[in-house]
Amino acid sequence: MNVDFPLHTASVAGLLDQISSTGMDPQRGGYTRPVFSAAELDLRSWFIEQATNRGLAIEHDRNGVIWAWWDIASGNRDGALVTGSHLDSVPGGGPYDGPLGIASALVALDILRNRVGAPPRAVAIAVFPEEEGSRFGVACLGSRLMTGAIDADKARNLRDQDGITFAEAAADNGLDPRFIGKDTERLSKIGAFIELHVEQGRGLIDLDRPVAIGSSILGHGRWKLSVHGQGNHAGTTLMEDRKDPMVAAARIIVGIRESATNHPQARATVGRIQPVPGGTNVIASRVDLWLDVRHPEDAVTAAVVEDILGRSRIVAAEEGCSVELREESVSRTVHFDRPLKDRLQLLLPDAPVLDTGAGHDAGVLSEVLPTAMLFVRNPSGISHSPEEHVENDDAEAGAVALAATLEGLILQPQTAAR
Amino acid sequence: MNVDFPLHTASVAGLLDQISSTGMDPQRGGYTRPVFSAAELDLRSWFIEQATNRGLAIEHDRNGVIWAWWDIASGNRDGALVTGSHLDSVPGGGPYDGPLGIASALVALDILRNRVGAPPRAVAIAVFPEEEGSRFGVACLGSRLMTGAIDADKARNLRDQDGITFAEAAADNGLDPRFIGKDTERLSKIGAFIELHVEQGRGLIDLDRPVAIGSSILGHGRWKLSVHGQGNHAGTTLMEDRKDPMVAAARIIVGIRESATNHPQARATVGRIQPVPGGTNVIASRVDLWLDVRHPEDAVTAAVVEDILGRSRIVAAEEGCSVELREESVSRTVHFDRPLKDRLQLLLPDAPVLDTGAGHDAGVLSEVLPTAMLFVRNPSGISHSPEEHVENDDAEAGAVALAATLEGLILQPQTAAR
Repeated sequence: MNVDFPLHTASVAGLLDQISSTGMDPQRGGYTRPVFSAAELDLRSWFIEQATNRGLAIEHDRNGVIWAWWDIASGNRDGALVTGSHLDSVPGGGPYDGPLGIASALVALDILRNRVGAPPRAVAIAVFPEEEGSRFGVACLGSRLMTGAIDADKARNLRDQDGITFAEAAADNGLDPRFIGKDTERLSKIGAFIELHVEQGRGLIDLDRPVAIGSSILGHGRWKLSVHGQGNHAGTTLMEDRKDPMVAAARIIVGIRESATNHPQARATVGRIQPVPGGTNVIASRVDLWLDVRHPEDAVTAAVVEDILGRSRIVAAEEGCSVELREESVSRTVHFDRPLKDRLQLLLPDAPVLDTGAGHDAGVLSEVLPTAMLFVRNPSGISHSPEEHVENDDAEAGAVALAATLEGLILQPQTAAR
Repeated sequence: MNVDFPLHTASVAGLLDQISSTGMDPQRGGYTRPVFSAAELDLRSWFIEQATNRGLAIEHDRNGVIWAWWDIASGNRDGALVTGSHLDSVPGGGPYDGPLGIASALVALDILRNRVGAPPRAVAIAVFPEEEGSRFGVACLGSRLMTGAIDADKARNLRDQDGITFAEAAADNGLDPRFIGKDTERLSKIGAFIELHVEQGRGLIDLDRPVAIGSSILGHGRWKLSVHGQGNHAGTTLMEDRKDPMVAAARIIVGIRESATNHPQARATVGRIQPVPGGTNVIASRVDLWLDVRHPEDAVTAAVVEDILGRSRIVAAEEGCSVELREESVSRTVHFDRPLKDRLQLLLPDAPVLDTGAGHDAGVLSEVLPTAMLFVRNPSGISHSPEEHVENDDAEAGAVALAATLEGLILQPQTAAR
């Protein structure tokens, strides 16, 4: 056994407790930790300290991903087994979405060290930036850049709500924006990626189990729908003289729900809306709204969006307004690597297999790598909300399951980069 | 003639040109100059410099109003004639709403000095803070504080979007928040208040005239309507399991338009909406929207709001949500002082008389003082938008009309404080 490493003492709950005051949002409740915010940078520093304390070697790649390496003696990282998740959050999110996967990875490596000593191949924890897309609008931006799923130029020009480009934010945070983008060499050396995440639905509640193996991720996409009208004064403009894009947007939102309901299993959501200029005594000149649509079949997702656009055009015309729709990101339905999933079922015989409606970096990476996911029970069934929760015992069960998975894969590597 | 003052050289257009780059809003277009922002503070400094250059004595009162005094030799300010307006703007407003009244007041005093030399009674220009209410939610906050139309404690606790209270912002800008509130002594010394403002409708376009006299201001109010639902994940929550306050808010906005349309002459607007937490991939837990309702008869305004609340409760219940409505400010219909208006008609025989749907400090002050308004033609008919406009010739005609009004009133004071 490698005596350079301390014995396993940390618990997942204990680690998360260390960051429980970072990025709290007194207005929304929960946590607001957008990428490169003070809160997210504090969490990155915390992770680096935790990893360094464990003797892991820290590496910052050119896409803003942090890698913490448990190297083998030769230093060869070929076929590395990688686990990890993200530290950023949606506005007013819960404490587990992202950080649970990072804390569980740290604890799983502690367990693994105690059981196997030095690993036969390199193991790493990866922390991905902007998984939620809550600042620059594209979810899983780090993994999309790394895999080339988003064009580097498009990524550089993404803007946050203050008009700051991703290139500017990246440069302010130690990245050279010229060098972001597809990283084939790095990907070619990864044997498999396993992401542990809090469950975002009620599957494990209904099955009464603490941990599940992921089978697939619903295809989903984000579109920005802009409704253009005529800005004017709220007091001096008669109702019949108005071309109010807020009324048009409201009718469009009602139509979006109808479009989704007409397509079984489809989900369509407007969670963000921004009138311009946004004054109480001002008829807006434009209303931007963001549309999130998901369905197990990609063709149905596209059909729902087409239906929404058609209805929106009719409504906008009736209100003297116009609409434009811009795709921000689209992810096809992901089926995780079948052989890897079968291995996990052998290693974790008590874990049920579940799909999820939520996107993940593991889904993006699955295009180029064998990937798998573990889900940990969320007793509220509520996600992207302060009410998201994980019991401490379930969190520890998740870390143990992740350790067992990593041990099984590390001792019998039957997966390789595609 | 008093040789201490320079001859009239400034034009309204020339003065406005000096501030044409202050507070430009590249995102919304137009200008964003909320109270106590860098832009509004720059405009205040500009005004103080302009007034000081003209030998006017600057006074900051305890409610954040700037007074520039053209004093008589004895220093007695009893029965003073006051003109003025505001420098703050709505988000993405035009260049004239507020600043036109200030620049015209400066030019009118230039004209007046050239014609009458030393005035027989004190004249002042007043610059009111937070006329638009775009930062703290209460329009005409400065004049409401001065007249006691808003309780000082309520004003101290108003919060902006960043959670900063008006008391904190006031203290940061040289006011002692303990001393804001009703200023009876100051008001008792003002003989009359005349506000010049860009017209916010199409009245002068239709009449083909550059300047009008105001007769009345439509009663109006602002309410904050909060729709409470259940925040959750946009991907993992089935459509039938949702209590989505955004869908409820959308249906409510459609209903608001119906309520207004059902009451002839009523105007009801939602120009501002804020989902919480406001993430693209998050079903909101709450949606706040701000409601602006106006009607010539105050009882009808109240009836429209009651109708809206009733419809909103039904819609919210159907969506598994709930609503709460909070009044932010209410102004009754204002009829300007009749004798003063009659005097203005004698002094400006070519000016038509118009009412307006927009609120003004002159409306608030009319509760305790004889007040009057002049409107200057806006050839776009559009207000609270970058498209608001005033032709230079009309701006000069406005300043000349204001000077003639001040001259007529100053030489034959037939109005006194009530």
